[in-house]
Amino acid sequence: MDTKSQAKWNELLERTRELYDLTAISALMGWDQSTYMPPKGGAARGRQLALVERLAHERRTDPALGRLLDELQPFVDSLPLDDDRVAIHREARSGYERAVRIPASFASAFAEHVSESFMAWIEARPANNFAAVQPYLQKTLDMSRQMSHYLADSGHIADPLIDIADQGFTVDELRPLFARLGTALAALVKQIGDRPQVDNSVLHRHYPKASQLAYGEQVARAFGYDFQRGRQDETHHPFMTKFDHDDVRITTRVDEYDLGNALFGTMHETGHALYELGIDPAYAATVLDAGASSGVHESQSRLWENIVGRSAAFWQHYYPSLQAAFPTQLADGSSEGFYHAVNRVAPSLIRTEADEVTYNLHVIIRFGLELDLLEGKLAIAELPEAWHARYDEALGVHAPSDVDGVLQDVHWYGGPIGGSFQGYTLGNIMAAQFYAAALTAQPAIEQAIGRGEFGTLHTWLRENIYRHGAKYTPGDLLVRATGQPLTIDPYLAYLRTKYSGIYGPLTLEG
Amino acid sequence: MDTKSQAKWNELLERTRELYDLTAISALMGWDQSTYMPPKGGAARGRQLALVERLAHERRTDPALGRLLDELQPFVDSLPLDDDRVAIHREARSGYERAVRIPASFASAFAEHVSESFMAWIEARPANNFAAVQPYLQKTLDMSRQMSHYLADSGHIADPLIDIADQGFTVDELRPLFARLGTALAALVKQIGDRPQVDNSVLHRHYPKASQLAYGEQVARAFGYDFQRGRQDETHHPFMTKFDHDDVRITTRVDEYDLGNALFGTMHETGHALYELGIDPAYAATVLDAGASSGVHESQSRLWENIVGRSAAFWQHYYPSLQAAFPTQLADGSSEGFYHAVNRVAPSLIRTEADEVTYNLHVIIRFGLELDLLEGKLAIAELPEAWHARYDEALGVHAPSDVDGVLQDVHWYGGPIGGSFQGYTLGNIMAAQFYAAALTAQPAIEQAIGRGEFGTLHTWLRENIYRHGAKYTPGDLLVRATGQPLTIDPYLAYLRTKYSGIYGPLTLEG
Repeated sequence: MDTKSQAKWNELLERTRELYDLTAISALMGWDQSTYMPPKGGAARGRQLALVERLAHERRTDPALGRLLDELQPFVDSLPLDDDRVAIHREARSGYERAVRIPASFASAFAEHVSESFMAWIEARPANNFAAVQPYLQKTLDMSRQMSHYLADSGHIADPLIDIADQGFTVDELRPLFARLGTALAALVKQIGDRPQVDNSVLHRHYPKASQLAYGEQVARAFGYDFQRGRQDETHHPFMTKFDHDDVRITTRVDEYDLGNALFGTMHETGHALYELGIDPAYAATVLDAGASSGVHESQSRLWENIVGRSAAFWQHYYPSLQAAFPTQLADGSSEGFYHAVNRVAPSLIRTEADEVTYNLHVIIRFGLELDLLEGKLAIAELPEAWHARYDEALGVHAPSDVDGVLQDVHWYGGPIGGSFQGYTLGNIMAAQFYAAALTAQPAIEQAIGRGEFGTLHTWLRENIYRHGAKYTPGDLLVRATGQPLTIDPYLAYLRTKYSGIYGPLTLEG
Repeated sequence: MDTKSQAKWNELLERTRELYDLTAISALMGWDQSTYMPPKGGAARGRQLALVERLAHERRTDPALGRLLDELQPFVDSLPLDDDRVAIHREARSGYERAVRIPASFASAFAEHVSESFMAWIEARPANNFAAVQPYLQKTLDMSRQMSHYLADSGHIADPLIDIADQGFTVDELRPLFARLGTALAALVKQIGDRPQVDNSVLHRHYPKASQLAYGEQVARAFGYDFQRGRQDETHHPFMTKFDHDDVRITTRVDEYDLGNALFGTMHETGHALYELGIDPAYAATVLDAGASSGVHESQSRLWENIVGRSAAFWQHYYPSLQAAFPTQLADGSSEGFYHAVNRVAPSLIRTEADEVTYNLHVIIRFGLELDLLEGKLAIAELPEAWHARYDEALGVHAPSDVDGVLQDVHWYGGPIGGSFQGYTLGNIMAAQFYAAALTAQPAIEQAIGRGEFGTLHTWLRENIYRHGAKYTPGDLLVRATGQPLTIDPYLAYLRTKYSGIYGPLTLEG
């Protein structure tokens, strides 16, 4: 690299590091707001978040950044395709181009609308008052369509919104994939519904908070979460958040009458954190110091939560220590009974509490509603009834009110309509695909889990996924790590095998 | 106000609010760093703090801000002197003028030096290695002198540094004041040294952390600290910090074998917090939404900690509840014995742990050393010996090493030499002056404290001090609140009366 290119390259790194740090500062403010902030601190926090967002937006759309990216193009074109700098330039350019396509006035109007919409939802939800949020949702839908038009000239109207979270995926690809998945899941749900049900009452005894937190942290540590580079705090809606390559935190919520809530939540957020903590330190504070997509991120939270944490091998090893932590509550239990209890399948109303088999049906309903709204096939006013109707049809359950219906998830009240949900199901599919590849490469992984050893799995994931950060698109990463593009076969095979073991032989056809 | 002036005025408020918010964001990062940040998060935090400081510095020295202040001058000159806007304009102008007097290159070099100096101190202190910090201190001294020259052309070289923390105070005023105070304190210390000593062993039994924290919060609440607008967390070096008018937090440190540590620390930080929380809400997020000076701030922490929290009346009411919180540890104690224990006077090595009578002697030593260093009468190399010699002379104690000598306080390793210490003693003096005025206005305050009621005192303080924020200079505020300028007489009278009650009749002359 000549001196002039080197200087320009350093300027690019400096500009993107500043954006990285501003994002981290916002994240810290959000973390504090969700964990420790006193109740009356909220008004100022909103003002402070808006200030940092404004500073970040100025920098994200700075024409000098655009010129710098142009000037560096010939240099980047001269590099081998797999050079890290090609990826850094690509990610920086795509961030810049997305930011400048959206007019500043629209961006700030949308941020303001989303903030008001969120506040309206916070009040409307406990009051079961859909009418109160309806005008906000209408405006969100209008603005989501507008945003899509800013971002792309052709393709399905949802594609640009999906692309923000899951780069490269389109409605054309996802619709048939989700249809096939939905059919298979419906078949599993139907068969399981005819089998004797698992008893999970053991999860609903009284489990004191402090012991639950201590046990969860013990598991997180065993998975490989480094408490020198992270920590766990309590919150209402658990999340993982990142302030730096070396400061990646998780949060959890404890229900003293639901042992699974905090424990599997901690495993889930630990999975997200292991991903971020496993990124190549050479990428620290660059545009590559992030996960590849929503779906890939979710694949890691679900892999650790479900494929590892809800496995028979895991509980074979961990059940005795859980009994030691809760000797009276678990006096009469067994490892196998507990394994069954944490894998009970039953149609339910709440996505975030759904079991592995029904979970994606919740997502597919929402994905379909988003497409219908964006395509103009469904009006906002019809949304509550459409919600109930699709739950009736797909899961055979009917929410008693909109609280557990269309008012359930924050997504449409805290961001655009479109692109919000597909990542969850992509994550489940990818988790199984990655895990199958890991097992092929390292067949001893499962026995190791049965001994409470996670190092071989963690190493495979770090080498094949984590360390790359955002260097590869999700599609490229899948091929590199597993040898093939996205496929639902490993996921369906995983579900069939696992739940046949619990409920008796199952098939994937209705 | 005409439309044009109104627009300019709004712009001033907006610009200063942005600076207020950037300061708050830095404070949040500092709070997190001192309470919850995982060990390896420090490197990025330094980078993030530097970024926000850079953004704030750009705004603080923006020539457009200077022009705006000039343009608003005629409007402000047309207002009555006591109008809030006159004070807002004055404080905004003084902040701007101080910032622009210091060249940006010097400001960033000094910030970098201070950060390195602090890291050097963190390593040198446990190792008792003065030689390691000596070059840093030398540079700090050189830069402090340089900073003073930037800020003012005449007067004592320490005056501009003192003025930053305690506006309006000068060496000419403080030197004779501190000399008179030092003589009187020395006389008290000498007489007390000849009397039978108080037994404070009761404080050093085992007091579990959780109960200490709960008791401290109960007292903070009783003083009037609003946990809707604040909270308490644990840290190593306790402090009060503010993120907004409605988010003012305190921190504490618990020693399970020293009951006084957390309890009086909590009272102290609560005093600082009550001041900030009591500022007129109309001043929220303006330049007036801050205390008047270091000294006035310290007067409130010391008033609540010492004059209230270490009073006989307080313990008359609170001792039974303390016994209930620690029934075995305090089974054999009495309210009077406990009152004596928490007021034991004895020369010691550590400023922050010193009793009320000897405390200011520690400050006066440091203030004198700062002046001698700045005046060139003392070299950095001579500082350790000068420290020991002055402790020998003033307190009759000799630190076994520099750890409890010149390496003791963070101040000279975290900021300039000069202006760092006088605020502590000014605070003690003002606390007594304010309290005497409060008692004159509301003689029932003392009986109320004996009933555990602090509302009358809190209201007087809020009405006469807190609500004004930074509207008045410390000198003006003292005259408004107490009817006279700074005087040490109430403070000396307070100490003589209180400690005569504990140790037998004392006089203020040697």
